Amino acid sequence: MSLEEKSDMGVSQGVPPQLVEEILRHADANLSASLDRFFQFLRIPSISCDALYAPQCREAASWIADELSGIGFEASVKSTIGNPIVIAHSKDANGPHVLFYGHYDVQPAEPLEAWNADPFEPSLKEQPDGDTHIVARGASDDKGQLLTFIEACRSWKAVTGHLPIKVSMFFEGEEESGSPSMEAFLDESGEELTADVMLLCDTYLWRDTVPAITVMFRGIMEEEIEISCATRDLHSGAYGNAARNPIQVLADLIASLRGANGEVTIDGFYDDIERIDDQIIADLANLDFDADAFLSNVGLSRSAGDTAYSVIEQIWTRPSCEINGISGGYYGDGFKTIIPSTALAKISFRLVAGQDPERIQSKFRDHIRARTPADCKVKFAGFGGSPASLISSRSEYLGCARAALKQEWDCEPVLIGSGGSIPIVSVVKRRLGLESLPIGFARSDNRHHSPNEKYDLSSFHKGIRSWIRILAELSRCTPVQPPSFAGDDSGADQA
Amino acid sequence: MSLEEKSDMGVSQGVPPQLVEEILRHADANLSASLDRFFQFLRIPSISCDALYAPQCREAASWIADELSGIGFEASVKSTIGNPIVIAHSKDANGPHVLFYGHYDVQPAEPLEAWNADPFEPSLKEQPDGDTHIVARGASDDKGQLLTFIEACRSWKAVTGHLPIKVSMFFEGEEESGSPSMEAFLDESGEELTADVMLLCDTYLWRDTVPAITVMFRGIMEEEIEISCATRDLHSGAYGNAARNPIQVLADLIASLRGANGEVTIDGFYDDIERIDDQIIADLANLDFDADAFLSNVGLSRSAGDTAYSVIEQIWTRPSCEINGISGGYYGDGFKTIIPSTALAKISFRLVAGQDPERIQSKFRDHIRARTPADCKVKFAGFGGSPASLISSRSEYLGCARAALKQEWDCEPVLIGSGGSIPIVSVVKRRLGLESLPIGFARSDNRHHSPNEKYDLSSFHKGIRSWIRILAELSRCTPVQPPSFAGDDSGADQA
Repeated sequence: MSLEEKSDMGVSQGVPPQLVEEILRHADANLSASLDRFFQFLRIPSISCDALYAPQCREAASWIADELSGIGFEASVKSTIGNPIVIAHSKDANGPHVLFYGHYDVQPAEPLEAWNADPFEPSLKEQPDGDTHIVARGASDDKGQLLTFIEACRSWKAVTGHLPIKVSMFFEGEEESGSPSMEAFLDESGEELTADVMLLCDTYLWRDTVPAITVMFRGIMEEEIEISCATRDLHSGAYGNAARNPIQVLADLIASLRGANGEVTIDGFYDDIERIDDQIIADLANLDFDADAFLSNVGLSRSAGDTAYSVIEQIWTRPSCEINGISGGYYGDGFKTIIPSTALAKISFRLVAGQDPERIQSKFRDHIRARTPADCKVKFAGFGGSPASLISSRSEYLGCARAALKQEWDCEPVLIGSGGSIPIVSVVKRRLGLESLPIGFARSDNRHHSPNEKYDLSSFHKGIRSWIRILAELSRCTPVQPPSFAGDDSGADQA
Repeated sequence: MSLEEKSDMGVSQGVPPQLVEEILRHADANLSASLDRFFQFLRIPSISCDALYAPQCREAASWIADELSGIGFEASVKSTIGNPIVIAHSKDANGPHVLFYGHYDVQPAEPLEAWNADPFEPSLKEQPDGDTHIVARGASDDKGQLLTFIEACRSWKAVTGHLPIKVSMFFEGEEESGSPSMEAFLDESGEELTADVMLLCDTYLWRDTVPAITVMFRGIMEEEIEISCATRDLHSGAYGNAARNPIQVLADLIASLRGANGEVTIDGFYDDIERIDDQIIADLANLDFDADAFLSNVGLSRSAGDTAYSVIEQIWTRPSCEINGISGGYYGDGFKTIIPSTALAKISFRLVAGQDPERIQSKFRDHIRARTPADCKVKFAGFGGSPASLISSRSEYLGCARAALKQEWDCEPVLIGSGGSIPIVSVVKRRLGLESLPIGFARSDNRHHSPNEKYDLSSFHKGIRSWIRILAELSRCTPVQPPSFAGDDSGADQA
């Protein structure tokens, strides 16, 4: 097939199946080179929550921009008040316009001693089942996942010279830190992100052989509280009993957040929750979700949540309160008999549709203040939040994506929820009016945020192939919005 | 006065006052040299709870032994399973035999950022009231205090060539870590520590101008507990609600240890407490103890303890439970949305007379085990303990020491309690049958175990002078036990 024939493809007629096969074969043949690029990317320790790693975050942003420029995208690294954001646009034919989102930042690797190897020197570990793990911090969350899309575009470009639809991409470097620069960035450059739908990949397969589209995310609200009592650490012999102990106070406060059945006991916490529609509840009940295996995989035998709800409801449709970290006094080797002056906890709430992060923050702070005893100061630091998202399950784009996934995986993809938060989904809905199609290829045992994070080679490979097919299928869709940024229409033959 | 005249002193007749004055003048004139030695000692970071500092602990032991050899003691550094113990004997006249105890180890200096200067580079800070602070880790607890005794002996030796009574000393290097080597050391070498009474100095002045003898100490029992739930850290979105959170569990357990009135709620915790005799209770009530000032000095306005007891009872005669440290999950900069796999707390109990550390440990562990939910493993690590001590207030030695203190301080010394633990007092009572006379010159604002620990120059100076007088007065006492180790009797003229 010549380039001329390829450029003759009518968007509305879709892409000829034999062309898709050719592109898939190209991706297969070049998997090793894709993997080399993946390793380069993983070696950059782009940890966003620690300002010491800001240069490495910038390096990761530049790396992506260079890769995208290399395959013909108009790519730029945009400064923000924090880590930069990469924006890239293809110059392809009219038709549907997708905006792809990913994040190049990663969680810290601590505790380092729990890793079997350097978290930023990726390694391939062959598995007894014939698959291979790619082990490194960020392998799955989100570097491997976002590269599946870029590598799919690379194969399209290599074989046909262009993409079948218009593609824009943006990659942020602060997803793991609550995206503090995102709103200001959208104020400045949001217009450049106009599209018909957002694709993203920060999600999971349902089973190793069954893909999923995630239509429901929990929101989040993060708080740090610090309790201060005496003006300095005290000798626990000299003051024990008489001096208020901030660790005891903090423990009492944390204990007051949950009832005996795992329910959150903050006054009004559940008040504003939207009723989940019956169809979704029924779909959840029909999923082959094995709650016992879900728990036993991580060494647990029973749920700690509210027994009025199934485990899948507890993690997808019910809000939670989790203590993510705590510290106070001396906890190193040996013993230091002090009453410390301060103690600190990091507490986050997973929210469901209807719960407003600011209202939940206010209720939480009221709860804490009302229970903080005399002689204690409590200091709150908010780390931001975002509401939950419920994505429409009836769009044309969703239908095309499902069809593409079915071709690649030979089964019907499922629509699922996620207990995690992808704040960008609600931000993009609110700011740009875009619905999202979250399609990811991670497995549930990928150890996101934990030591020895991994991505399966099969996830990487079939992820690339899936996106090649999705790009082809989406070319059948009707554009939702007219093209809106200059220079986009005329550039189809420049790729 | 010639050496001959000095050696003619009859022990039972006491020391001529003019000789004591001569020794005091010598100490005054040589204070600067005493201070130089004190600084040398403070520069050795002999932190016992961290094995990395074992060489520095050995260095501190050698330093003391060298100083004591230098003034004619037969000094040796005895190996133990941990840090060495220094033993020294004078070769002086018959008569009362005192054993002096101190510890050369110090607490860790963390948090380092809270110090105004290097904790192991001592500095002199002149104060508006004309006194001078000696600032360094261990300045007061216990290096400065123990040196007051050694420097007192030095002045005695320099002026008279010998001491007025028999003096043995021993210095351990693990007091701040629960003295794990002490029992084995006493099994091996306890016989060498035979004496009539033990002197020690790890205690406080009552007021800046009023000395005290501490007749009552609380005991201690230290426990570390670690709660483990899942086999790895979990993403709090993916598992929040369903996975048991070990920080939440630990907080619930800690909250269960204390009731609303500050009382310890462990079943049977108060069962075995001995009734304090009425005279001591009356003495406590008569002390000019300002509870409001005690609390407001450290930024507190009211006691957190059981309101059925006065503040002084809460800290001296009532047992307590304190959380000394806690850690779990991620508590660095930023946020890490995990449900950690483990959380840890260090918890200590201050005990009063009648409470057996092992029984309290067992009751504590039963309390925790009974409340640990399904799917949690709890691991206990005991850091040892010692019972409380009530020292007889009617001994001849106590009377002589009070008389000496009255001469130096121009007021009646008070008999007090201490909320802190000096385990050696009960160990020596149990193992060697010795009563103790704890006489220290620290002030209550010395920041023991805290940043910017200090010792007042006046404490150091008047401490030396006090011991010079106490040694003189104790020469009037009747030996309780016959001399018991070889070579001790014949050596009086070898000093």
